[in-house]
Amino acid sequence: MTVKTYTLSFDTKGNNDIIDLTDRLRDCIGSSNVREGLVHVFAPGSTMGLTTVEYESGLLTDLNEAFEHLAPSSKTYAHNQRWGDGNGHSHVRSSLLGSSLSVPITEGQMVLGTWQQVILVDFDNRPRQRDIVVQVLGESH
Amino acid sequence: MTVKTYTLSFDTKGNNDIIDLTDRLRDCIGSSNVREGLVHVFAPGSTMGLTTVEYESGLLTDLNEAFEHLAPSSKTYAHNQRWGDGNGHSHVRSSLLGSSLSVPITEGQMVLGTWQQVILVDFDNRPRQRDIVVQVLGESH
Amino acid sequence: MTVKTYTLSFDTKGNNDIIDLTDRLRDCIGSSNVREGLVHVFAPGSTMGLTTVEYESGLLTDLNEAFEHLAPSSKTYAHNQRWGDGNGHSHVRSSLLGSSLSVPITEGQMVLGTWQQVILVDFDNRPRQRDIVVQVLGESH
Repeated sequence: MTVKTYTLSFDTKGNNDIIDLTDRLRDCIGSSNVREGLVHVFAPGSTMGLTTVEYESGLLTDLNEAFEHLAPSSKTYAHNQRWGDGNGHSHVRSSLLGSSLSVPITEGQMVLGTWQQVILVDFDNRPRQRDIVVQVLGESH
Repeated sequence: MTVKTYTLSFDTKGNNDIIDLTDRLRDCIGSSNVREGLVHVFAPGSTMGLTTVEYESGLLTDLNEAFEHLAPSSKTYAHNQRWGDGNGHSHVRSSLLGSSLSVPITEGQMVLGTWQQVILVDFDNRPRQRDIVVQVLGESH
Repeated sequence: MTVKTYTLSFDTKGNNDIIDLTDRLRDCIGSSNVREGLVHVFAPGSTMGLTTVEYESGLLTDLNEAFEHLAPSSKTYAHNQRWGDGNGHSHVRSSLLGSSLSVPITEGQMVLGTWQQVILVDFDNRPRQRDIVVQVLGESH
């Protein structure tokens, strides 16, 4: 078994910008030559999150409303009172959604559902340049 | 180290049907002969979720109420307005809960807590036939 | 590739006690000699959760308010009515937050963000002695 590490870079708009990572993950898997194993994705930062979704515009709207329900941007946050950067809701959403996920690889392909994409959500309250870390672990044969 | 991939099939009732995967995962680990490593579980589909819980009927009721609180089935979803399939809440719950988890294996056993089971939640709004992907990675010795 | 398993023990206060695991994970990675791979963290128990956060007192307050919003401690839980232990909200929070996460390791270091720590949340309603399982998988070279 081997492990290969890749970094994917993105310019985001912040404010719940939702980016489809799926094709970029396929490229990493192709480069790795791993046929059987898994791809692990991690968001190094405390105002991002990772999950899967059917990437269509209706659900992107619905997800953003759900994040607003989970941790409203208009609420008073102790983080903002202490640090004044106004992104307390971004941090809380990141912690609740999580920053780590793995997808199995079999016969060189991710086993995602037909209508399932891997997404990055940038919860921060301003545009950011982001690096996502991708690891492909497994057997090439 | 080796990696073994298994597919588990289930007929679900949909509508937050909660299925205990724990015994089926133990079978996979037994077949794999892995003694030290981890079992990774993934739900390929955008209206399912995976997590752990003490699998008793009270908590299954409580979890369903929590999902209804997270993403109410009676809310208006842009997904439903666009596609008309009425399962916008199922997709949102799936994204919030997540579809990927791993449990360590040591001495050939998962290190779950005494009252902790691995569950699949089918959030879709109708019965489905579902495949769950299980990978056992590690050393057999 | 190798896998090394470690157990970290903590005395917690319960009631959403939030413990920074980051330095202890670094110790495990150092002991393992893994240079390229990942560290997997798992909470064996059904009233704990794991995630990442910027570990500063404002956000710890904000996270606790978010958990109270997700699964209020004052709500009626079927689990409590059946078992009488009063920690239904602890179980529900644990299932929603999740008990499993992995962080990539490259050049012997976790690739966490500058302001990102790995935390254990003990949601139970009383002090507990807790064991967290840490696995380091990868290549030492």
